[in-house]
Amino acid sequence: MDALEFKKVFEEKYVENQSFEGMSNVIKTLEDVKNNKDSALRSYTEKFDGVKLDNFKVHEEKLRKSYDSLPAEEKDALETIRQRTEDYQKTIKYTDQDDGEFKYVYHPLEKVGVYVPGGTALYPSSVLMTVVPAIAAGVKEIHVTTPTFEDNNITFAALYLCGVKNVYTVGGAQAVAALAYGTETIPKVDKIVGPGNYYVAMAKRLLFGEVGIDMIAGPSEILLYVDDKVDVDSIVYDIYAQSEHDANARTFLLSEDVDIIDRIEHRLKDMINAQPRADIIRASIEDNHYAVVDYREALLDLVNYIAPEHVSVQHEDSAMIVKNIKYAGAVFEGYHTPEAIGDYAAGPSHVLPTDRTGRFSHGLNVNDFLTSHAIISLNEDTFQDIAGPAMTIAKKEALDAHYQSLKIRTE
Amino acid sequence: MDALEFKKVFEEKYVENQSFEGMSNVIKTLEDVKNNKDSALRSYTEKFDGVKLDNFKVHEEKLRKSYDSLPAEEKDALETIRQRTEDYQKTIKYTDQDDGEFKYVYHPLEKVGVYVPGGTALYPSSVLMTVVPAIAAGVKEIHVTTPTFEDNNITFAALYLCGVKNVYTVGGAQAVAALAYGTETIPKVDKIVGPGNYYVAMAKRLLFGEVGIDMIAGPSEILLYVDDKVDVDSIVYDIYAQSEHDANARTFLLSEDVDIIDRIEHRLKDMINAQPRADIIRASIEDNHYAVVDYREALLDLVNYIAPEHVSVQHEDSAMIVKNIKYAGAVFEGYHTPEAIGDYAAGPSHVLPTDRTGRFSHGLNVNDFLTSHAIISLNEDTFQDIAGPAMTIAKKEALDAHYQSLKIRTE
Repeated sequence: MDALEFKKVFEEKYVENQSFEGMSNVIKTLEDVKNNKDSALRSYTEKFDGVKLDNFKVHEEKLRKSYDSLPAEEKDALETIRQRTEDYQKTIKYTDQDDGEFKYVYHPLEKVGVYVPGGTALYPSSVLMTVVPAIAAGVKEIHVTTPTFEDNNITFAALYLCGVKNVYTVGGAQAVAALAYGTETIPKVDKIVGPGNYYVAMAKRLLFGEVGIDMIAGPSEILLYVDDKVDVDSIVYDIYAQSEHDANARTFLLSEDVDIIDRIEHRLKDMINAQPRADIIRASIEDNHYAVVDYREALLDLVNYIAPEHVSVQHEDSAMIVKNIKYAGAVFEGYHTPEAIGDYAAGPSHVLPTDRTGRFSHGLNVNDFLTSHAIISLNEDTFQDIAGPAMTIAKKEALDAHYQSLKIRTE
Repeated sequence: MDALEFKKVFEEKYVENQSFEGMSNVIKTLEDVKNNKDSALRSYTEKFDGVKLDNFKVHEEKLRKSYDSLPAEEKDALETIRQRTEDYQKTIKYTDQDDGEFKYVYHPLEKVGVYVPGGTALYPSSVLMTVVPAIAAGVKEIHVTTPTFEDNNITFAALYLCGVKNVYTVGGAQAVAALAYGTETIPKVDKIVGPGNYYVAMAKRLLFGEVGIDMIAGPSEILLYVDDKVDVDSIVYDIYAQSEHDANARTFLLSEDVDIIDRIEHRLKDMINAQPRADIIRASIEDNHYAVVDYREALLDLVNYIAPEHVSVQHEDSAMIVKNIKYAGAVFEGYHTPEAIGDYAAGPSHVLPTDRTGRFSHGLNVNDFLTSHAIISLNEDTFQDIAGPAMTIAKKEALDAHYQSLKIRTE
C-alpha cells in the first residue's frame, strides 16, 4: 500500500486514546497500600502472585549468589553492556551552565524507584537499561521492585552487577504504590521508572505529580526504511527480532522500491517456520505487519506521523533520511546498526517511547534522573534596567506588594 | 522554631498525597468531550461559566484590538519582558550533539496547548512565561484555551504580542480534554502546559501519557534565607509579595540569626494594615507563614527537603548557600534579585514546581518544548566488537531472532 492508505489503516487500528478501564480498582489498590503499607503488599502478593511473603526485601546474599551462578561468558557480556551504557550516558549528561547573572544547575534525584517486570519479559538487558542511567546521573538510592520470586534469577544477577542493594519482590500496581507512598519496608521515592503491565501503567498514570514518572509503555514497534540494495535475510531477521517479542509487536517496512519490498515480504513468510519463536512471530506478522511503498517525502511524513519507537534506516541515502526524522524513539542507521544491537550493547537505553508518544517524549536517559533549576543573581545595573517594566506589570496585575518589593530596591 | 520542629510541622501540615476526589466526574467530562467534541464544550461552558457560545475561537481582530487598547507604557513593559524571556530561553536551549557513531538531536514539538487561567489569576506575565519558551523552542502551532470572555482583555493582548493566533474561550477540564483529544474547532496537541484549578490539574493528571503534560501546580511558596544584615522592610515586602497571591501561599523565613528574625517578624505584623491586599496577606501570614532559626547545615537540609518553588538567599555567604541547594524551583540570590523580579522580567519562566515536586521536576523552559532522540550509526569495527556480548545476552533471553539479526552481520 502507499503512505496515505497506510496512514488510514494506522489511524484506525493503532491510534487509540488511553483507556480509563479498571482505574477505580487501581485507585483502591493505591489507597490500600497508602493506608496499610506492608500488610497490603503482603495480601496483594498472595492474592495476585500466589506467593506468601513475610519479608519481601531480597537479601543481598541472594543477589550475589544469583550473579555468582552465571557462566563467565554471561558475566562478561553483562559487564560489557553495563560499561558501554554507563560510558554513553555520561557523554549526554547535562552539565551546569554559568553565564554570570544566570546559572542553570543540575542535581541527581535523591531516591529512584525502578519497576522490573517479571514473567515472560524477564530481560537482564532491561534491568541495565533502566538502572545504569540512574547510576550515571549520580542517584545514590535506587529501589527496585519486581514480581520475581526465584533464586538465581538473571534479574537479581544484573542488579547485583550494578551494585543495587534495595530489591523487593513485589509487583503490579501495589509495587508502584509502595514506591510512591512508602511503606515500613519500601521508602517513598522521588521518581518511578520502568515498563510494566496495564495495571502498572495505570498506577503510574494516577501517580503522576505525586512522584516523577518516566513514561507509559505500549506495544513495541519498529519501522524499517530500506532501499533496493539491502540484504534481504538481514532485514527479515530485523523484522522477526521485533515480532518475536509478542503478537502485539508492530513492524512496518517502508521503501521507495516495490521490488525489494516484494522480495522481503516473500522471504518473511518463507522463513517463519524455521524460527524457534515461530508462533509468536507468525501472529505478530499476520496482525501487525505492514509494507508501504511510496516516494521519499511521503515516507518521511509517515515516519514523523508515527514517531516509531525504533526506526532502522538501511538505505544509501540514510544521512539525508535520518536528518529529516523529527519524531522517533531512537534511530538506527546502516547495515551495522541493526536495532538488536541497540537492544543490548550500543549505549543508549532501549527504554523508548511507543505509540506515537515520541512526538512529545524521549527515550529514558541519564538526564531523566537529574533535576534542575535556575539561579538568578542580578547585579544592580541589570536590576535597575528591568525594574521599571516589571513594576508596570505588577501594577497592572494589581499586585502591590510585588510592586513595593521592587520599588524599595530602586530607591 | 528550629529546623527539626519546623520539619515536623511542615510534614503534618503540607505533605499531602494527591487526592483522587472528583476523579470520576473529570473522567466523565473527558469522555464527553472525546465523544461529543465542540457540542460538549458548548454545554460545559454554558453550565460552568454561564456563557453561551457559538464560536469559541477568538477572532484575531479581537486579539489585536485588546493589544491596541493598552497604554504605551504597558505595551513596552510587555515587550521588554517578552524579549528578555526569549533571549534567556535561547541561552539554555539544548543543542544537537554529534559524536560520530552517536548523535543526539532535538526537535521542537509540532503542536502545543497552553492553558491560561481566568478569574482572579489573570496575569499577562504568566501568558508570556508559558508561551515564549514554546516559541523559543521553535514550536510552530500554539493553541491557547482560557476561560476569559471579555474584550480588551490583557490575556488577549499578551497573546497578540507573542503572535499567537489560535485562542479559544474555553476553560476547565473540558478545555484540557479538547486539547488532548481534539474537536472540530480545537486540534489535538502533543503537549499541554500551564497552571489551572483543581479540575484542570486533575484532567492533566488523567491525560498524562495521552499527551505530554508539564507539571501539576500547587499553592505558591517562597523560602527566604537571610542574614542579620538585610534591610528589614525589603524582606517584609518580599514576604508580602508571596502572601498577596492567596491565603494558601506559603512563606518560610530562615536565618541563623534570631534577632533579625524577630525584627522581620515584628515589622511583618506592623505593616500589614497599610497593604492594599491586607486581607489576603493577613490570612496567608496567619496560616502559612513560619520563621525558623537554626545553624546552617540544618537550614540547608531543610531547604533541600522542602524543595521550595522560590528560594531567595539574601545573605553575605550566599554563594556558599546557593551552591548547596540541590532541590528548588528557582533560586534568587542577593538584594538586587528579589523574587518579584523573577516573576516578571529576569528571564527564566515563573512557572515552577511547587509542593516538593522540585525534587523531581523543574521550572517550565524552552527544553520542555523539544523532544529528542539518539541516532546510532555504528561502523563495522564497533559492531564486530560488541556483537559478541549482545549475542550472548540475546541467547540468554531466548530471543533467537535478535541473535540471528546480529549473527548474520558478523559473517
